[in-house]
Amino acid sequence: MIKIKKILVANRGEIALRIIRSAKEMGIKTVAIYSSADRNALHVRNADEAVWVGEAASSASYLQMDRIIDVCKSLQVDAIHPGYGFLSENAVFAEKVEKAGIIFIGPTPDAIRVMGDKLASKAAVADYNVPLIPGTDGAIGDIDEARKISGQIGYPVLIKASAGGGGKGMRVVENEEEFESQMNRAVSEAKSAFGDGRVFIEKFITSPRHIEFQILGDSHGNIIHVFERECSVQRRHQKVVEEAPSSVLTPELRKRMGDAAIGVAKACKYRGAGTVEFIVDEKLDFYFLEMNTRLQVEHPVTELITGLDLVKEQIRIAEGNPLPFAQDDLKIHGHAIELRVYAEDPANNFLPDTGTLNTYVRPQGPGIRVDDGFEQGMTIPIHYDPMIAKLAVHADSREEAINRMIRAIDEYLISGVQTTLSFGRFVMEHEAFRSGKFDTKFVERYFTPDVLDGVPDAEMEEIAAALTAKIYGNGAKSSAAESKVTSTSGNWKKRARFPGN
Amino acid sequence: MIKIKKILVANRGEIALRIIRSAKEMGIKTVAIYSSADRNALHVRNADEAVWVGEAASSASYLQMDRIIDVCKSLQVDAIHPGYGFLSENAVFAEKVEKAGIIFIGPTPDAIRVMGDKLASKAAVADYNVPLIPGTDGAIGDIDEARKISGQIGYPVLIKASAGGGGKGMRVVENEEEFESQMNRAVSEAKSAFGDGRVFIEKFITSPRHIEFQILGDSHGNIIHVFERECSVQRRHQKVVEEAPSSVLTPELRKRMGDAAIGVAKACKYRGAGTVEFIVDEKLDFYFLEMNTRLQVEHPVTELITGLDLVKEQIRIAEGNPLPFAQDDLKIHGHAIELRVYAEDPANNFLPDTGTLNTYVRPQGPGIRVDDGFEQGMTIPIHYDPMIAKLAVHADSREEAINRMIRAIDEYLISGVQTTLSFGRFVMEHEAFRSGKFDTKFVERYFTPDVLDGVPDAEMEEIAAALTAKIYGNGAKSSAAESKVTSTSGNWKKRARFPGN
Repeated sequence: MIKIKKILVANRGEIALRIIRSAKEMGIKTVAIYSSADRNALHVRNADEAVWVGEAASSASYLQMDRIIDVCKSLQVDAIHPGYGFLSENAVFAEKVEKAGIIFIGPTPDAIRVMGDKLASKAAVADYNVPLIPGTDGAIGDIDEARKISGQIGYPVLIKASAGGGGKGMRVVENEEEFESQMNRAVSEAKSAFGDGRVFIEKFITSPRHIEFQILGDSHGNIIHVFERECSVQRRHQKVVEEAPSSVLTPELRKRMGDAAIGVAKACKYRGAGTVEFIVDEKLDFYFLEMNTRLQVEHPVTELITGLDLVKEQIRIAEGNPLPFAQDDLKIHGHAIELRVYAEDPANNFLPDTGTLNTYVRPQGPGIRVDDGFEQGMTIPIHYDPMIAKLAVHADSREEAINRMIRAIDEYLISGVQTTLSFGRFVMEHEAFRSGKFDTKFVERYFTPDVLDGVPDAEMEEIAAALTAKIYGNGAKSSAAESKVTSTSGNWKKRARFPGN
Repeated sequence: MIKIKKILVANRGEIALRIIRSAKEMGIKTVAIYSSADRNALHVRNADEAVWVGEAASSASYLQMDRIIDVCKSLQVDAIHPGYGFLSENAVFAEKVEKAGIIFIGPTPDAIRVMGDKLASKAAVADYNVPLIPGTDGAIGDIDEARKISGQIGYPVLIKASAGGGGKGMRVVENEEEFESQMNRAVSEAKSAFGDGRVFIEKFITSPRHIEFQILGDSHGNIIHVFERECSVQRRHQKVVEEAPSSVLTPELRKRMGDAAIGVAKACKYRGAGTVEFIVDEKLDFYFLEMNTRLQVEHPVTELITGLDLVKEQIRIAEGNPLPFAQDDLKIHGHAIELRVYAEDPANNFLPDTGTLNTYVRPQGPGIRVDDGFEQGMTIPIHYDPMIAKLAVHADSREEAINRMIRAIDEYLISGVQTTLSFGRFVMEHEAFRSGKFDTKFVERYFTPDVLDGVPDAEMEEIAAALTAKIYGNGAKSSAAESKVTSTSGNWKKRARFPGN
């Protein structure tokens, strides 16, 4: 067993802060890296040391493998935490780190490599009783063979890029007539996005739900799951609302899916925290999608329902410690929901927005956790993912968690950029979400911009300015009765006055 | 069963906000009241309606019973939540509220009355197998009789005001020689503080721990306890650090104390949320101290280890609902600690401080909850309790909770007023606290101002100004290597720079 003394966090934003916080609680020193766009970022302020590694573009800074490893050497860093995104699922980086004698807080390069390739991962799990979506076993070259297989599977079918992710190179084919044109488009998209034109074909699941299992494995071969997260509410094939537990899993199904998830992890001798993603259909049949070999954006919901700190568990595993609990020691407590607050305009097809956070007031109170990397006055850099914050709530029941999320959204005051807060409120109030009867097509099925009732940005700023003026002193004579205060929900607060004042 | 639709919160500050938040999550409208000093307070901003009830002094505003009831009538309020302090334990007010046809979210006036009198409460619990501290059964008039009883109990003994609280009219007598002079002082203090010179005598417990049990009772006679809170770290006989569970209770002792607490509640047919306080000695013998017939300041630690929302439970009980769980349904999850962040100067005998929050940045991240009523730029009013915030943490184990609290304290940036943050850090790092071997004399035994390593206020403001300048834009060319950033811990952050920038 090794005792890690200093960690370099090869990331930025909320997840860098998140990792720094857990390291600090463990008495471990931290080194932040930052690009020119992030000089004044909170992760830089909160780390023990911070090192500039390049210009704003990720390729010039956060993806500079050798430079990051050089920083570790010069500052006597024991271990690198890659967070999510950037270099977190890069087997070459993990290998370079290990060769430099530094601990990579994550799985082995082999595990990353196998699970990073959709076809290789499906081949790897073949002996582990993991249900797969009916489809081709390998990459398809011949279009006639592909058409034949599609006929056998039955339309609709899905064409997916072998090296893909994030919806790129993905095509649904409704019938045989459109097969050839869709296949050609998929191959050309895959080539330009990933430099790899290989595709495969599988059954297209109607009314699919996205349910994933959190995995922890140690370096002694112990692997457990930490329950599921449901991430079916997506826009542009990207998660925006996540919750744990899922509203459709029975204890029996949870056990079967958990066992399958452990099987996937065993197939690649998994070490560390990872996530096994499944697609679940209307009959609650489930199929393995892919494994993410890193900490997940939505990990807080798992932490809220278990009391675990997954970053600390990752660090302890990297130190060589065996898992401190067995599968049966873990229990689900209550319900947790996370809303990703993006700088995006829900009224404009969720187009990323940039700007300065003129108003930025976080919600507070019981059962609320905000993970972010910003403060009022800061600017959202255009160079990176436009996520401002992860707003997570925890309560005794799913219904209470939903109501708490609405309250939290209403307290969250943001102006200067458009955000997904108003969209989050729409989801929380929607009958399909409240009843648990929804799938990954929630947005295309129910959402149109006119359902939003958010406060216009200019109005929000006016309110914020009025509040600021009052709070900062020149409001001693202002009348509370005349003030108009509101939140993202558009609920104007009415004020009465006691007769006689 | 009644459905409450609108609640008036007869309080201010963090607890008013706390109640408003839970009401909002339940779909209940809220009415805030405010004094002239609280025009711009957050509880006013967050309520649906807000009514001015008088000038700054509590007696002119928050204690104005009839005026508050008039507000309820004019705004069709169904129920009043009194919070803690102010009118929360005032039987006359509870009676007036009920007579006006408004629901009082709390116990019956009778229960308040009985438990509000130390002698009456001890008499009431006589048949319920509740251990009492050896002492006089009633108020003492005759000094010779008092001296005789003290001799039988055995010195040291404690003289306490019958109507007392907060340490006023309380005297420790070490031996018979000093008995008469201490008795005379106690009587005269009690007379001037409470207008009631009656005192009683009891055994003085050396190395006492303060451990209290949270009680919930419904209007159908069901009473359960929601485990204990340990509040032994006190300054000036007032709690400052609280935790749950206690580090000294075994499951067996927890059951015995819990049963005794339920006995106390049964003795007054308790309805609502209440707290039964015990004193525990070195041998872990416990004695009933008093019952607080209201929500307690430190209730968040109980919420964190159980997942319950005690304010919601209070409201549901007031609506006439039976308790939704039985004793055995409740379980302890992890460990929680709360630090009361007061505007006080720990280096100057915890003297209350007032001023403006020039810097006010809350800690964030996993396992942290801040309940407060302030924002940066606001001024702490001199008219009320100087508590700024309650900083609560939750983690898997006591050790992790302590380390998380240290991290949270270090992230909490406050300038403009002295606070108990630095004192809190001293407690968290102290071996006596970490080992669980401490009692209510922690402060007098271990604490001297020179042990504090806080950052001087001026320095904190300089840092805050530097940070603000950077964040708000004119820092684009500032060098991260040159910046000095710190926290209340005095840990200066060192910044390195990648060679070549």
